[in-house]
Amino acid sequence: MERALELAALGIEADPNPRVGCVLLDPDGLLVAEGWHQGAGTPHAEAMALAIAGERARGCTAVVTLEPCNHTGRTGPCAKALVDAGVARVVFAQSDPNPMAAGGAATLRAAGIQTEPGLMADRVEALNATWNHVLRTGRPWVTWKFAGTLDGRSAAADGSSQWITGAAMRRVMNERRARCGAVVVGTGTVKADDPRLTVRDEQDEPVQRQPLRVVVGDSPVPAAARVRGRDGLYRQLPGGDATAALEALACEGIHHVWLEGGPTLAAAWWRAGVIDEVIACLAPALLGAGTAAVADLGITTIADISRLQLIDVERHGDDVALILNRPTPNCKEK
Amino acid sequence: MERALELAALGIEADPNPRVGCVLLDPDGLLVAEGWHQGAGTPHAEAMALAIAGERARGCTAVVTLEPCNHTGRTGPCAKALVDAGVARVVFAQSDPNPMAAGGAATLRAAGIQTEPGLMADRVEALNATWNHVLRTGRPWVTWKFAGTLDGRSAAADGSSQWITGAAMRRVMNERRARCGAVVVGTGTVKADDPRLTVRDEQDEPVQRQPLRVVVGDSPVPAAARVRGRDGLYRQLPGGDATAALEALACEGIHHVWLEGGPTLAAAWWRAGVIDEVIACLAPALLGAGTAAVADLGITTIADISRLQLIDVERHGDDVALILNRPTPNCKEK
Repeated sequence: MERALELAALGIEADPNPRVGCVLLDPDGLLVAEGWHQGAGTPHAEAMALAIAGERARGCTAVVTLEPCNHTGRTGPCAKALVDAGVARVVFAQSDPNPMAAGGAATLRAAGIQTEPGLMADRVEALNATWNHVLRTGRPWVTWKFAGTLDGRSAAADGSSQWITGAAMRRVMNERRARCGAVVVGTGTVKADDPRLTVRDEQDEPVQRQPLRVVVGDSPVPAAARVRGRDGLYRQLPGGDATAALEALACEGIHHVWLEGGPTLAAAWWRAGVIDEVIACLAPALLGAGTAAVADLGITTIADISRLQLIDVERHGDDVALILNRPTPNCKEK
Repeated sequence: MERALELAALGIEADPNPRVGCVLLDPDGLLVAEGWHQGAGTPHAEAMALAIAGERARGCTAVVTLEPCNHTGRTGPCAKALVDAGVARVVFAQSDPNPMAAGGAATLRAAGIQTEPGLMADRVEALNATWNHVLRTGRPWVTWKFAGTLDGRSAAADGSSQWITGAAMRRVMNERRARCGAVVVGTGTVKADDPRLTVRDEQDEPVQRQPLRVVVGDSPVPAAARVRGRDGLYRQLPGGDATAALEALACEGIHHVWLEGGPTLAAAWWRAGVIDEVIACLAPALLGAGTAAVADLGITTIADISRLQLIDVERHGDDVALILNRPTPNCKEK
């Protein structure tokens, strides 16, 4: 299962599908074939491993990170494929939480195949944490990233703000953004900064796989705004109802949203309780005045302070990133 | 010298005098006596070691962290005491930067004693960093500590602020404050919070050795203000001239000042360039509105941002402390 998990991690984090790995072992425990899922529309991990194994799959044990699927989507059901290939035993970690695809283990057992669920389930679930989150809550996992000084300023008094954090921090955050399904900003940020929101490589060229670029708000986005692009990956969603916007993104297969600003949209989503994770990128610098990195959250007294759970502290170049979760996971609110 | 440095560290950090350790070794390198300085008015490290050694000091090597002093203060000159005791050789780390006390090595050499300066000088200087700082600059080393949320707020909109950081952070900061010679606040903080500014133990009892309690500003401090106390350790200094206030504290033997607020005084001292170190105590929390932890620093555009050098990141309980220095040490400004 360690190896299956390694294989799963080769998959694409931002993909609508979960990352899955599969190892086929013969009755002596020797490796016959490996497979992993390379993204929606490509063969599932089990299908890849079975294709490599061919006739040698007969009598094998399949070790899979996720319960083999039972439904026909863009590819056929894996449970049936394992039965047809004559696999003798299936060990899997996580049971499929997707009601549309679940039932694979029952199909396998009905065909006389021994199934063993639960091995290393926690680690496998962690690998697909945001995908699991959307199945539990109906909403993507939302990471809100903001950058500021030690005194909570995101721009100087005259509005200038480039750059507060350094190149190393921006590079790391660019990489994390690339692993999300959608990047979200408000209409105010589009007006103020005209961002492209594309993920770019070291040569400043856009990378091949881009997240959705989502503008949330009711103000019109100019026809010439760079965020629109020409690749069909631009969306505008109405403001006002954070949950509706996030459910719409979930319907597009997005399980991880990267909320980048501005402060007004972030504050609205914070108040709506839909932000799961905060990444505070702090520069070792002071401004003393200027735009507040975080806008009014409706908190008037210290007893109502919004406390978060500190998960990690990272140093990137001269800057510090604090990784925080909401103390109560959103899934418990439902 | 390792041992001498260990002995020196037994001294009192907040004391006006530097921390010094001394080891006497016989010609075979065997330990004869040890000493360390226990604070102004008590014997110097060399005197303590010589008193223990008595006649056995004759022919010994003295290993001292600081060049033996050459002047008569509250105690007699150590250089002369070493000569009188018949010590054969003196190895010391740091040359005495205090012009009033320097010249000990020359006195020793004139008496035919072999002297070897410079061994582990960097580590010894680091031990007395703030004492060295005041000799170089004429001003105490100033540590400005502030506490706030991730978004730079030190109080909620209604003014309530207890507590933003947790008990573990407050305990650690209380311990650091105790190692300083003076705690400084502005008159605004006295009016708003009526702080005692005493260092207290786990039972909330004041500890025996207290830093000076200094209020800076021109507004009158109420006769009933708790900061005044009854132990003669209260001072009020005029506002407006940070350098003059710090020079006055240096004259009282203070080499490390703990500036605790409020934001107005801290901003004034920051603008005056007299703050050497910043400790930002950040709670993993958001307020979105309320009092800014850092007041106007006179910065209007991003090019003028005050950048600091990140020295360390510490976690205390749920909170994070960032330890930062001014990138250009104040001593270079002179």
